[in-house]
Amino acid sequence: MSNSTSTQIHLARRPQGWPTHDDFRTVTVVHPELSPGEVRVSNEFVSVDPYMRGRMNDVRSYVAPYALGEVIAGGAIGRVVASAAVELPVGTVVLHQHGWADGVQAPAASFRAVPEVPGVPSSLRLHILGMTGLTAYVGLTAIADLREGDTVFVSGAAGAVGTAVGQIAKLLGAKRVIGSAGTAEKAALLTEKYGYDAAFVYKDAPVREQLAALAPEGVDVFFDNVGGDHLEAALDVMNDGGRLALCGAIAGYNTTERVPGPDNLANIITRGLEVTGFTLAAYLHLAPEFTERMTGWFAEGRIAYDETVVDGIENTVDAFLAMMRGANTGKMLVRVSGAPA
Amino acid sequence: MSNSTSTQIHLARRPQGWPTHDDFRTVTVVHPELSPGEVRVSNEFVSVDPYMRGRMNDVRSYVAPYALGEVIAGGAIGRVVASAAVELPVGTVVLHQHGWADGVQAPAASFRAVPEVPGVPSSLRLHILGMTGLTAYVGLTAIADLREGDTVFVSGAAGAVGTAVGQIAKLLGAKRVIGSAGTAEKAALLTEKYGYDAAFVYKDAPVREQLAALAPEGVDVFFDNVGGDHLEAALDVMNDGGRLALCGAIAGYNTTERVPGPDNLANIITRGLEVTGFTLAAYLHLAPEFTERMTGWFAEGRIAYDETVVDGIENTVDAFLAMMRGANTGKMLVRVSGAPA
Repeated sequence: MSNSTSTQIHLARRPQGWPTHDDFRTVTVVHPELSPGEVRVSNEFVSVDPYMRGRMNDVRSYVAPYALGEVIAGGAIGRVVASAAVELPVGTVVLHQHGWADGVQAPAASFRAVPEVPGVPSSLRLHILGMTGLTAYVGLTAIADLREGDTVFVSGAAGAVGTAVGQIAKLLGAKRVIGSAGTAEKAALLTEKYGYDAAFVYKDAPVREQLAALAPEGVDVFFDNVGGDHLEAALDVMNDGGRLALCGAIAGYNTTERVPGPDNLANIITRGLEVTGFTLAAYLHLAPEFTERMTGWFAEGRIAYDETVVDGIENTVDAFLAMMRGANTGKMLVRVSGAPA
Repeated sequence: MSNSTSTQIHLARRPQGWPTHDDFRTVTVVHPELSPGEVRVSNEFVSVDPYMRGRMNDVRSYVAPYALGEVIAGGAIGRVVASAAVELPVGTVVLHQHGWADGVQAPAASFRAVPEVPGVPSSLRLHILGMTGLTAYVGLTAIADLREGDTVFVSGAAGAVGTAVGQIAKLLGAKRVIGSAGTAEKAALLTEKYGYDAAFVYKDAPVREQLAALAPEGVDVFFDNVGGDHLEAALDVMNDGGRLALCGAIAGYNTTERVPGPDNLANIITRGLEVTGFTLAAYLHLAPEFTERMTGWFAEGRIAYDETVVDGIENTVDAFLAMMRGANTGKMLVRVSGAPA
């Protein structure tokens, strides 16, 4: 087998505020001959996710920052095209974290073979049946301790995580699920497709007012992807003993100045609230439980999803920025093809 | 037995910002003859506590707001001076929640007899051996899940709760306990008397800077009595998986405008923090466990305390305001005597 090349997207410098193309660099790498135990993978889909913005900063976190001059790591799925590892023969579909590239060559242990199941597109392993779905599940169960009859509020509900949260919450017995979205079309999707009982467009009026109107009996569980005014609005209406799972704070990801927090944090005390932040790294032990339940629900036709697909590894940064602006409904993915051979 | 009178302090109107004397009214009530099952109690000490400020507002909380025109309820200890209830004979020392008055007449079931133990002043039942100590214990154990070797930061550490928190934290195995206080004298007391390893005066320099300097290895548990800049400073230095027990937010109790929260709430997500607010009502089941451990520690001479005592029920509002301004070290109490007979 001859050498081949892959196109990678590297972090060239740390973004200040909104990332620009100058913060990234497209690099062509030449793969040498396979060493024993290595495989070469041609990617089919690459994931762009909100949490990646945080890793572009040099701040302390459960997850290490991206190194400058290296590829942006993250979820991707592809197929083995060359193998020097018996456990991953050519043709195997594999999930991995090698990130923004159209292909990758690495030790077999850094890939995980996934079964090809009729009726289950492989891209779903990057969202509803993968980390995205697991994030929703962990937040609702391990973090927010969702109970039957709870009222749930989800911010940024039309995103990849949010569309999963609404459906899983209903499947787990939530009485009422309320979501916020960026456009009227997305809000409509929430109630028509994703099982939400009510939805509002956060740009239409203050979140505080809209949420209070839609949650006359209060909120027991808040699943937060946005932060800022959404967190403040939730704190207004949380019921005593309510639980807040903080998953993301996209509202603040691209701000350069420090933004003050909600003015009603005292409600945490007077109402006995539990506010818990989480990243998935500490909860991967729940993946088997999640996979069993989620694949069951999926097989029963009870899980809807959307994908917003951008073609071409060279458009990955555009896809990432569009996702940060909320241009996607459901999961934003980059479809790649053809490299390496 | 003849009728007698008591002096009560009522809430006359809801304070806006800092309470003034006009928000309260001193009322003399005439007690009728005892009905069967009632006792009359002459108070010895009445408690003034930060949480009472919250109950003066008409806001939703675990604890109901004080009603206008009624006595300010709260902890007090006294002695039965007249009894129509066999279970509480004259002379019994009783703890109760009838609040700001020099005496009270009520059904025996609303009082709890406490033993008179040599070497244990009855006033301690209102703080270190009572609700105050229980608050410290619950916050450290049930809320913050204190673990051996933890570094603990306590805001408002020289107050009644804070002096208990530092000692209990060390007794439970904390490696390092850091406290903030309002004056150099109080900060010195923290390290010299209350087992704190380090203390700082929050007015001397930004809390953010002082705390970061004293916690080079980060903080695992934050016990917050203050809120505001103290919460913000703690969020800066919390270690991954850290736990924040929000007990009070005295910084904001007397502000009339809404004050924005910390600018670094995103750390809750990236560091996987648990922020839990609590009021004691939901944790009274831990009182027996607390009492057993605390009386043991006390008998071994391992518990220090301070009392700031104001004499005369007519000075209760002054005592309350002085406590809110931080004029006390340890527990602020009002000593009353002589009524009813």
